[in-house]
Amino acid sequence: MKQSMLFAPTLKDAPKDAEVKSHKLLIRAGLVKMTAAGVYSYLPLGQRVMKKIEAIVRDEHDKRGCSELLMPALQPRDLWEESGRWANYGPELMRLKDRKERDFCLGPTHEEVITALVRDHIDSYKKLPLALYQIQTKYRDELRPRFALMRGREFVMKDLYTFSDSEEDLNAWYDTMMDAYTTIFKRAGLDTRIVASSTGQIGGDVAHEFMVMSEVGEDTISYCTKCEYAANQEFSGLTDGDPCPKCGGEIATAKGIEVGNIFKLGTKYSKSMNAYFTDRDGARKPLVMGCYGIGISRTLMAAVEQHSEENSILWPKSITPFDVHIVPLAKGKEAQETIDRLYRSLNDRHDVLLDDRDERAGVKFKDADLIGVPYRIVAGKTLQEGKVEFTDRYKNETVQIPIEDVEERLKQIL
Amino acid sequence: MKQSMLFAPTLKDAPKDAEVKSHKLLIRAGLVKMTAAGVYSYLPLGQRVMKKIEAIVRDEHDKRGCSELLMPALQPRDLWEESGRWANYGPELMRLKDRKERDFCLGPTHEEVITALVRDHIDSYKKLPLALYQIQTKYRDELRPRFALMRGREFVMKDLYTFSDSEEDLNAWYDTMMDAYTTIFKRAGLDTRIVASSTGQIGGDVAHEFMVMSEVGEDTISYCTKCEYAANQEFSGLTDGDPCPKCGGEIATAKGIEVGNIFKLGTKYSKSMNAYFTDRDGARKPLVMGCYGIGISRTLMAAVEQHSEENSILWPKSITPFDVHIVPLAKGKEAQETIDRLYRSLNDRHDVLLDDRDERAGVKFKDADLIGVPYRIVAGKTLQEGKVEFTDRYKNETVQIPIEDVEERLKQIL
Repeated sequence: MKQSMLFAPTLKDAPKDAEVKSHKLLIRAGLVKMTAAGVYSYLPLGQRVMKKIEAIVRDEHDKRGCSELLMPALQPRDLWEESGRWANYGPELMRLKDRKERDFCLGPTHEEVITALVRDHIDSYKKLPLALYQIQTKYRDELRPRFALMRGREFVMKDLYTFSDSEEDLNAWYDTMMDAYTTIFKRAGLDTRIVASSTGQIGGDVAHEFMVMSEVGEDTISYCTKCEYAANQEFSGLTDGDPCPKCGGEIATAKGIEVGNIFKLGTKYSKSMNAYFTDRDGARKPLVMGCYGIGISRTLMAAVEQHSEENSILWPKSITPFDVHIVPLAKGKEAQETIDRLYRSLNDRHDVLLDDRDERAGVKFKDADLIGVPYRIVAGKTLQEGKVEFTDRYKNETVQIPIEDVEERLKQIL
Repeated sequence: MKQSMLFAPTLKDAPKDAEVKSHKLLIRAGLVKMTAAGVYSYLPLGQRVMKKIEAIVRDEHDKRGCSELLMPALQPRDLWEESGRWANYGPELMRLKDRKERDFCLGPTHEEVITALVRDHIDSYKKLPLALYQIQTKYRDELRPRFALMRGREFVMKDLYTFSDSEEDLNAWYDTMMDAYTTIFKRAGLDTRIVASSTGQIGGDVAHEFMVMSEVGEDTISYCTKCEYAANQEFSGLTDGDPCPKCGGEIATAKGIEVGNIFKLGTKYSKSMNAYFTDRDGARKPLVMGCYGIGISRTLMAAVEQHSEENSILWPKSITPFDVHIVPLAKGKEAQETIDRLYRSLNDRHDVLLDDRDERAGVKFKDADLIGVPYRIVAGKTLQEGKVEFTDRYKNETVQIPIEDVEERLKQIL
């Protein structure tokens, strides 16, 4: 893609309300832009990263037998009355009336809608289990939206719901999804930790969160310095110096970013919303449910937090918006033709960004550091000798190579 | 994918409010399900078709230099005050207040948001043109939602906005997108016609609609029986027997489904929202805008309308939810192993649906006709002789072929 058409408005300075490194970089690199408090537009670079994260999420869900659907954000009050959450949810639930004065909310989660979808059709154990997910936009009217995508009011989530005929089957799905999530975050280049947590507004019995360990973040994690124990502090109540409930070792605490969560819902929604099936023995039983979320937009932010310095991002290969960034400095018709030829040949095989803007070298390099593409080709003075500068930003290594060797070199590393 | 995990709840009968063939089939084939009036959930089969349509749309936009972004549905009143549409839009605009009593609407289109995004960064002709699109969920509080996805209140759209430094550049983009749309609908297997139309709530100077000619649909098209002239009747005012304004020939009328529209907005939004740039000559000028929409969910419905009979769908190759449908009838361990082997070998290369449900043959065939996969493999009695029935539903042709020939046959046609 040619950078002149990309719309990646980079900024020298971050907005004043941006306290956190990733928040500053999200704005400065032109990944997102605020439209209202807690409501963001994902600009082309941010959207490209989101699509890569989504592709990983889809792949790991589909290969485990999950099926993708798409439910509405607009949800009728009736369904929320059935579950009891219309009264209980509080002011974080965004509510509105349609032109006929009927009540709706904008879904913060989709337990009600999916339970209503499934109950009409799943009448027998023969049709179980089911695992249905969506990647969709959610709403939560945060009192104090902040840290950009970390606590937003409109955000993109993957939410999966499983329906089982027994606790055992739910437990199996829970383990499957714990494994899927571990794989997903690893593939996306994130260092996460699984911590026990409370079930909050969603309800249910058992829950875990996937935390990106980071100096910033909204949650405090109590973890044992000796064993594997880790829990959300809100849930565990443990603080620095307390004994570990598992091994007696010493507890320490740290600030984390929650990027995923999984819940054993059990029969909370199926009972209140009358979602029953007939089992092998002829008995009528409530569906046993689990739900599993990944904050797609939050994962984007966490990735920036983990893979950046003050003035530059370095994307993991799996989610980088482009593989290769060509930065031409040489001028003149002949140089331009050579560069265009290189761009076209590489672009067939890889995602290539060509900085075709009429800007000074300093501006181009600063923008390239912000944008964060891992492999960079600078076509400058040595282009006359048929050479370009090839930088592997992971290795922080720059070499001069003949232009005809670029394709082979990329083939080896991409 | 195994059908037992797909969640495609087929129905014998359509709901009573479904008057139109495609509406009946959308529900009966388990493609969508109503959550509230005009608000639908896209079940896995419907979502798979949507994703294929979206992939075609992305491809044809990206190759023309457009850049994808994602804007919010939640839009602050301020922006709509700037354009003047907060007062003018009427009750179709869904409005809500946040917890601090600030006014928002749910975007039916995104002229305000995109103009605000672009005006802060595009200060010079050097940064033009720009072509930015999104695939996103939109809201319109229809007085009488009906025909399922044809007149919904929450729907998926692709909307593109172009920003130019001159009328000439806008005209060039308009022609480019007319060409892109023609290609997109052709690739999606839809027979469309370009008709002149009024600019409606969006505003602007010139507009065209892409119509799927169909007995059903919300719009009446006046078209000339002699020349190429075609216009929305609402715009042209012409009815059967009137003389064609272009060639004097006879006008006829027909009901069409609008799947796309393109508008020359000109400077309506850039002037009211103060989006100016400095031109080559140093003069400050308003950005010249165009906007271009495709109803993704409506395209899904139009495809069903054009590619179906009363009890069956036959998807075009380009948007079919699966390429191949394996319907096993033979029982026993050996048969099952053979079928599993076939499924696994084909599924590596194609999108294969395996009907692994414990259902009678009649149910399986009826569901297969509804679901509409173009190539079907029935593994029945002849499996003992190492043969399966291979049906090409486009040709309405069934042949018995050795199981080892299936892969080669599919390679030739897919």
